[in-house]
Amino acid sequence: DYEPSFKIGKEKAKVCMTCHGEDGISTVDPYPNLRGQKMGYLISSLKDYQARQRTSGLAILMQQQADALSEQDMKDISYYYSVLGTSKEEE
Amino acid sequence: DYEPSFKIGKEKAKVCMTCHGEDGISTVDPYPNLRGQKMGYLISSLKDYQARQRTSGLAILMQQQADALSEQDMKDISYYYSVLGTSKEEE
Repeated sequence: DYEPSFKIGKEKAKVCMTCHGEDGISTVDPYPNLRGQKMGYLISSLKDYQARQRTSGLAILMQQQADALSEQDMKDISYYYSVLGTSKEEE
Repeated sequence: DYEPSFKIGKEKAKVCMTCHGEDGISTVDPYPNLRGQKMGYLISSLKDYQARQRTSGLAILMQQQADALSEQDMKDISYYYSVLGTSKEEE
């Protein structure tokens, strides 16, 4: 069963922060905020990029990011963002 | 130039609330929260569904929704969600 870890997720999410912001609020209008987003939605979005089921201009940038992630990475990063800014956030 | 209207956006977003929640926090894990999301990202997502550049299982449900929207509808709905829960929200 999946053992969520905020700390591991935060470590793995470092690469995401450039575009999605230090606190999960993105730095530019075309990129989504991820702070407090649904974990299930984040995982399925990453999988869609990896499976090339998101193919617009911006999506291509994200495909490369998603390709570098394992299933475990996706869960850890998605868990991290889903609790970011909520009471379940712990350092 | 685009004249944003929270009230018009809210009216048009009624159809979105079933899945994305009354307050923009979705009711189930696979569906994204839209509350306070970036307007530019919301518009490009809707366009991707309409252009069939999002094609996974869940995306197909959203394609039908996006097909029913004009460019103006997309802007109004995206504006509404982007200010929902922020100080710019006004009834």
